Amino acid sequence: MSEQEYRIEHDTMGEVKVPVDALWRAQTQRAVENFPISGRALEATQIRAMGLLKAACAQVNKDSGALDATKADAIIAAGKAIAEGTYNDEFPIDVFQTGSGTSSNMNTNEVIASLAKQDGVEIHPNDDVNMGQSSNDTFPTATHVAATEAAVTDLIPALSQLRDSLAAKSSEWKAIVKSGRTHLMDAVPVTLGQEFGGYARQIELGIERVEATLPRLGELAIGGTATGTGLNTTADFGAKVTEELKKLTGVEQLKEAENHFEAQAARDALVEFSGAMRTIAVSLNKIANDIRLMGSGPLTGLAEIHLPDLQPGSSIMPGKVNPVLCETATQVAAQVIGNDAAIAFGGASGHFELNVFIPMMARNVLESAKLLANTSRVFAERLVDGIEPAIDRMKTLAESSPSIVTPLNSAIGYEAAAKVAKTALKEGKTIRQTVIDMGFVPEKLSEEELDKRLDVLAMANTDRD
Amino acid sequence: MSEQEYRIEHDTMGEVKVPVDALWRAQTQRAVENFPISGRALEATQIRAMGLLKAACAQVNKDSGALDATKADAIIAAGKAIAEGTYNDEFPIDVFQTGSGTSSNMNTNEVIASLAKQDGVEIHPNDDVNMGQSSNDTFPTATHVAATEAAVTDLIPALSQLRDSLAAKSSEWKAIVKSGRTHLMDAVPVTLGQEFGGYARQIELGIERVEATLPRLGELAIGGTATGTGLNTTADFGAKVTEELKKLTGVEQLKEAENHFEAQAARDALVEFSGAMRTIAVSLNKIANDIRLMGSGPLTGLAEIHLPDLQPGSSIMPGKVNPVLCETATQVAAQVIGNDAAIAFGGASGHFELNVFIPMMARNVLESAKLLANTSRVFAERLVDGIEPAIDRMKTLAESSPSIVTPLNSAIGYEAAAKVAKTALKEGKTIRQTVIDMGFVPEKLSEEELDKRLDVLAMANTDRD
Amino acid sequence: MSEQEYRIEHDTMGEVKVPVDALWRAQTQRAVENFPISGRALEATQIRAMGLLKAACAQVNKDSGALDATKADAIIAAGKAIAEGTYNDEFPIDVFQTGSGTSSNMNTNEVIASLAKQDGVEIHPNDDVNMGQSSNDTFPTATHVAATEAAVTDLIPALSQLRDSLAAKSSEWKAIVKSGRTHLMDAVPVTLGQEFGGYARQIELGIERVEATLPRLGELAIGGTATGTGLNTTADFGAKVTEELKKLTGVEQLKEAENHFEAQAARDALVEFSGAMRTIAVSLNKIANDIRLMGSGPLTGLAEIHLPDLQPGSSIMPGKVNPVLCETATQVAAQVIGNDAAIAFGGASGHFELNVFIPMMARNVLESAKLLANTSRVFAERLVDGIEPAIDRMKTLAESSPSIVTPLNSAIGYEAAAKVAKTALKEGKTIRQTVIDMGFVPEKLSEEELDKRLDVLAMANTDRD
Amino acid sequence: MSEQEYRIEHDTMGEVKVPVDALWRAQTQRAVENFPISGRALEATQIRAMGLLKAACAQVNKDSGALDATKADAIIAAGKAIAEGTYNDEFPIDVFQTGSGTSSNMNTNEVIASLAKQDGVEIHPNDDVNMGQSSNDTFPTATHVAATEAAVTDLIPALSQLRDSLAAKSSEWKAIVKSGRTHLMDAVPVTLGQEFGGYARQIELGIERVEATLPRLGELAIGGTATGTGLNTTADFGAKVTEELKKLTGVEQLKEAENHFEAQAARDALVEFSGAMRTIAVSLNKIANDIRLMGSGPLTGLAEIHLPDLQPGSSIMPGKVNPVLCETATQVAAQVIGNDAAIAFGGASGHFELNVFIPMMARNVLESAKLLANTSRVFAERLVDGIEPAIDRMKTLAESSPSIVTPLNSAIGYEAAAKVAKTALKEGKTIRQTVIDMGFVPEKLSEEELDKRLDVLAMANTDRD
Repeated sequence: MSEQEYRIEHDTMGEVKVPVDALWRAQTQRAVENFPISGRALEATQIRAMGLLKAACAQVNKDSGALDATKADAIIAAGKAIAEGTYNDEFPIDVFQTGSGTSSNMNTNEVIASLAKQDGVEIHPNDDVNMGQSSNDTFPTATHVAATEAAVTDLIPALSQLRDSLAAKSSEWKAIVKSGRTHLMDAVPVTLGQEFGGYARQIELGIERVEATLPRLGELAIGGTATGTGLNTTADFGAKVTEELKKLTGVEQLKEAENHFEAQAARDALVEFSGAMRTIAVSLNKIANDIRLMGSGPLTGLAEIHLPDLQPGSSIMPGKVNPVLCETATQVAAQVIGNDAAIAFGGASGHFELNVFIPMMARNVLESAKLLANTSRVFAERLVDGIEPAIDRMKTLAESSPSIVTPLNSAIGYEAAAKVAKTALKEGKTIRQTVIDMGFVPEKLSEEELDKRLDVLAMANTDRD
Repeated sequence: MSEQEYRIEHDTMGEVKVPVDALWRAQTQRAVENFPISGRALEATQIRAMGLLKAACAQVNKDSGALDATKADAIIAAGKAIAEGTYNDEFPIDVFQTGSGTSSNMNTNEVIASLAKQDGVEIHPNDDVNMGQSSNDTFPTATHVAATEAAVTDLIPALSQLRDSLAAKSSEWKAIVKSGRTHLMDAVPVTLGQEFGGYARQIELGIERVEATLPRLGELAIGGTATGTGLNTTADFGAKVTEELKKLTGVEQLKEAENHFEAQAARDALVEFSGAMRTIAVSLNKIANDIRLMGSGPLTGLAEIHLPDLQPGSSIMPGKVNPVLCETATQVAAQVIGNDAAIAFGGASGHFELNVFIPMMARNVLESAKLLANTSRVFAERLVDGIEPAIDRMKTLAESSPSIVTPLNSAIGYEAAAKVAKTALKEGKTIRQTVIDMGFVPEKLSEEELDKRLDVLAMANTDRD
Repeated sequence: MSEQEYRIEHDTMGEVKVPVDALWRAQTQRAVENFPISGRALEATQIRAMGLLKAACAQVNKDSGALDATKADAIIAAGKAIAEGTYNDEFPIDVFQTGSGTSSNMNTNEVIASLAKQDGVEIHPNDDVNMGQSSNDTFPTATHVAATEAAVTDLIPALSQLRDSLAAKSSEWKAIVKSGRTHLMDAVPVTLGQEFGGYARQIELGIERVEATLPRLGELAIGGTATGTGLNTTADFGAKVTEELKKLTGVEQLKEAENHFEAQAARDALVEFSGAMRTIAVSLNKIANDIRLMGSGPLTGLAEIHLPDLQPGSSIMPGKVNPVLCETATQVAAQVIGNDAAIAFGGASGHFELNVFIPMMARNVLESAKLLANTSRVFAERLVDGIEPAIDRMKTLAESSPSIVTPLNSAIGYEAAAKVAKTALKEGKTIRQTVIDMGFVPEKLSEEELDKRLDVLAMANTDRD
Repeated sequence: MSEQEYRIEHDTMGEVKVPVDALWRAQTQRAVENFPISGRALEATQIRAMGLLKAACAQVNKDSGALDATKADAIIAAGKAIAEGTYNDEFPIDVFQTGSGTSSNMNTNEVIASLAKQDGVEIHPNDDVNMGQSSNDTFPTATHVAATEAAVTDLIPALSQLRDSLAAKSSEWKAIVKSGRTHLMDAVPVTLGQEFGGYARQIELGIERVEATLPRLGELAIGGTATGTGLNTTADFGAKVTEELKKLTGVEQLKEAENHFEAQAARDALVEFSGAMRTIAVSLNKIANDIRLMGSGPLTGLAEIHLPDLQPGSSIMPGKVNPVLCETATQVAAQVIGNDAAIAFGGASGHFELNVFIPMMARNVLESAKLLANTSRVFAERLVDGIEPAIDRMKTLAESSPSIVTPLNSAIGYEAAAKVAKTALKEGKTIRQTVIDMGFVPEKLSEEELDKRLDVLAMANTDRD
């Protein structure tokens, strides 16, 4: 690029050339140059939280008189504008930067200073925007705000939608009997509604899992400044900023950290939250796997249900349609499991007063939340809601399962029942006929009792969940 | 072995040779032969839970009249004896067996039948001991009973002990100032008590993490039999057995599963519980790392604390003593993280009405709980309780940190303060002298104010946590 | 225990009570008491390698004249006896010990000294048995010897057996046509032999993967002593000991480390080897999953093959038989994936001249090798070798797949072919009939050409691999 | 958006609205709508490989006469233009799509058809561009081409640069003695050059690790079409396309898969390659950790080396400079470990003729390669090349280590040497003085011999690697 496209900025290390139109300044530019690693910037939700946090801090500094009202108002306005996503392009620094997020904290401070300057207010990125703060409390705080907000406003609602879709199908299909399968082998009957009720419960428990982590995820480090001691700010700064953040986000789960040394030195709450999301990924994988197995076919598979046709499935095999959203869901599950491993590694590797894996951890936590939320919604809307059961086929299969001999255990004993099942299978006869042929009727039970016991829908105890 | 050392047993597949003195029978023997994989049997806590469960089921079957009282009493007695660990050697089947744990369920049924027979009571492993049950509800139930009991009676008490040890040191060392370190670089001061207070808080939160998972871990599948429908038992069987199990174990967190299809088809609660343990491992890794760094030396390292001498450290370097329990702790952390990955993989891979990775998941969950509990206890007793701080050295280091210039920001501004720090470092002078030499006294602040601001103990805000 | 059951031993830290019959001495005893963690000792293959290494070192020290021949011979004899497994019970120290394995190195030195003493030779555990060695080179060396030996003498032969079993089935079933399945949906035909040929190739590649890591796994640290510099030994010690080890084990892949600092400070070769084993676990998981899906049924699943009946499958459902060895294999896969995560964490966490996660890494590496080897053998012998194909059913399914329209693409175009497939499915007709009904014969192709194109066995290109 | 901004496209499922200026068509548009998951498109290197593959296939189809030359030339030109990155924006589909990559294969086919149409050549996305191909062979092929190319042209050169930087420092610092550290505790001396030589060797081995996987990673599935049988193409298609790809990329490691069923059903080679990259991440983590520990300070840490000042390190602590590239490297290590876990999960989860986790696996493999390559380069250029050793401080520390008593073992015995070390430490005296004070001179060795043995540089065996 030619010389005139740059302007000169400076910081404590000297002068730096910055693109002439950029709102960022010297420290951001150094970081852009130092970290040409992934080509991927922070998640937008992280930038939003940084903006909100800066606004909240300025408000508290204004209220306490530490910061001039004009300056404070300029910071608040700029912080809120950043939170709206208007200036996401002004955050060019790579995720794989300094592990404290100092570069991104300074990026925020610099953009806010430039926005204020556009409005005629001269403020200093460190002395004013960063007043009473350190990267070491702000970046973790913004990460936990973003993660908690993602959990409360995106992930939990999306999971709720998926749970509701599954539960609706569970009710609708309450009396559709099918073969149970354990070890993938024919077992005693269940209903399709019971299966989907189990899936709905998995997702319901997933919501509980996320909620169970929020009391710790919502703890904010702000107020601890450089090392947790709160040097250069007041003792009530953290509490007051937290109150502002609750107002700005509407997220009630936010609270000041009980112990600021833990809150800055450890990122365990992110590890825990990721563990909960990973558990949801595990649930989703199981559900998606079952659904694609049930939908396998149309003619050589189980073919118990029909999934909505979303797109042509093959570039070579005409007419083929595939369970593409099951594949999305299971790939998301794999990614969330992978992200979780990265998060745990980072979480384990802090030293003394700071963990320096925060931007990486934030990326993975926020990506996992987004992936699970988006997948849950699409899975509910475009897949679950449109499934059509093959009722007759399921009933036929259920009645063919040799395991329907099981209710006869108490009449003829487990060992005799095993002989019935094996004989039926070997001779290609029904269980009913084999029981009669082997002479158990009427010696052990009447034909009427036999028929009652072999009723597959009754076996499934349809009122059971 | 010669022919006469065996006896002949049979099951529904035919005859099997079993060691003449073994309490187990045909199905156990088949499994011993089918699974020569790891050479490792189930965890003792799992066997205990199987014994308790069989006793509980027999009690309920006796109360309902389904099972003859003599038979029931024999099963109850045998189940309790198994739970005491008396017959652990009678459980020879490998962990890596059928994924439902059917082999181990039948092993329990067979050993109980043999024990009853020794007392003159003839009972059938399937029809009597397994009455109203299936491997598919009993083995998961025993796994969750064992895991919940491990959490409540072993892991949480051990973590509490470690938290208390750390908290005691935090109080004791409340006024011992030292250099903070962020990015491993010199930062503003903290106290040793604050650091250990942060560690204590990590472990306290670890306890909360485990407790937060218990409402789901404590859910028991019993009552669902083969596929969750409760076929071949009564609707209240699960609830009643659960009540018995609460009595037998004293573990209040046990409860009947809200949805029996989820409870048998998914093992998500184990994945979640493991995630919590993995988070504790992450905490422990950080704490152990910090402690060995602080204890590094004696003469070429940080040497801020002295760890108890536990054993000679080197087979070649005489007099060397090493932080061996930090190494135990971090190796345990690695193992728990590994176990967790295995658990998640298994948890994700179930099909339809059953997850067939249960024995492997149980091994890893129960091993992780044991490793963390044992390590926490030893770490507290043999390490933390015996640490001796090098008080003077820590103070000297704290005062040498260039970052103690930080409290001057509000007096001279961040940029001037940076010049002070760099000049001091370059010229090998103290921050105090450099501030004076650069002419900031008395222009920006008085010498008295300077000294006040440079008091490292005051900087650490010792009343802060 | 009563006083007289102990004897008093001493080391550089003072006196220790040791069980009176134990061959181990003071340092071992301290370690037993310091590490009550997992209750699990080192893998037997690790103890064997320690014994061999001590014998090899003594031989070299004898040859160089550094060590008295009588002493050396006593060490050699004792080391070999340990390698035979005779004294495994004399190695009571927990895996989760000091991360260098110093405790186990001293355990070996002490047991050898005691065995020599039984033969009337007085030797010192450090000065004689450990001559020219350090825990920091011996324990890694023994670990790599054990791992390389496990790879060469156990894992690769077991994988070869499995590959051969799969390949034999591939040949045998060369002409058995079945429906291909992609996305679990009906696809164009393949043969059962082609599928098993793919599995055989996966295992063949797994062997290549292991072999590709041996040039690095086989590098031995011995000769570096405490920090890699070789202090207190001679420059040729490592090379000579390695030669002895090659003789003792017959493992040609062993060689002296090219760089002794890397060889002691890093355990990367274990991480790499574990990565190869993890890849084999991934292969095994896929193969076992396919086989249990093909064997699913007998009446409600795919039922394309029949697996050998190994044991009764259910404690409640009579006559049920399950794919238990597929479950063993997939559980082993999960465990190997978990072990691998632990190994990677440990491998990443060394500091300066030593990685202190070696005993944990060794446990996991050696366990993974054993699990995969044992599973491969059992899977081949008890499962693959006994599979019986349901030939007619597979052919019927293959012919029903709508995707057999695919060969018509070049005659009628992809879009028209898609219409054929959809129409056939909707109207429940064969592809052949639909093509005719829709008028493509004879306009686009003759009936003869149609039949030729719709021959499913021809479609499968049976000579293709 | 208003109606006129769209045009209507159709596929075998019907009509779709597509943005009027888009080069993509109906199937791409469906996928854009079906997969609103991550907001992240395929890696550019993957798109490049798809373009090259389409060009190669067209060339072979042209050569064989199957495809009209005009059409073929249009496809070749368009494919190459895509490979140049010119049309990356025309690939809008999310990574988390159908697991076969069918959507992206069709995206490529559609964009090529549109580009050809701009040049006046009418071609069909399926019948012409996809001729002789299926998503099931093309997408894996493109993934392996992209991964192999990334390994050969980006990752290995970057690792070579890092190895060379480390090796240069190793030579330069050959005679700079410093204290060794094992267990983080003072040990016998090494040189700084030896340490960096160990790091260089780790990276050298990392290159070997990657190279060792290429024979399998380079195997290409092309030619297998839908299920590996090669239906709808000729037997030599795969070999010929592979030859074209070698020409187009210059990557010699590419070759036709030996077994096309393995090559389509399994993605094991990606798992293996990722395992190698994960091992490199482990190496990098260790190296970066050591370097930041050595650079810790400037006044309260080890302060053995000085790292280049890259950017201001703190928003609150003036003058602070941090080891930011060590933090980048360790965060990258964590991410690569996480990506690897996702890849293994996906690799394990295929079914029958296809693994449906390919886009996710490709993302993670290609990201890991990029992260490691970029980090290696920056780490070499901006960090390693600029490190300055604190020579005097290192020598002083080396001489203070109590472990320098070790060379006296052979003169005075291990136990006496331990007493020397402990006495020296307790009384604050040098090892030399203590040896003399305890009377070992001249009884056990002369003063001259003592001084010779205590020479720390000699102890380090500087010619040793």
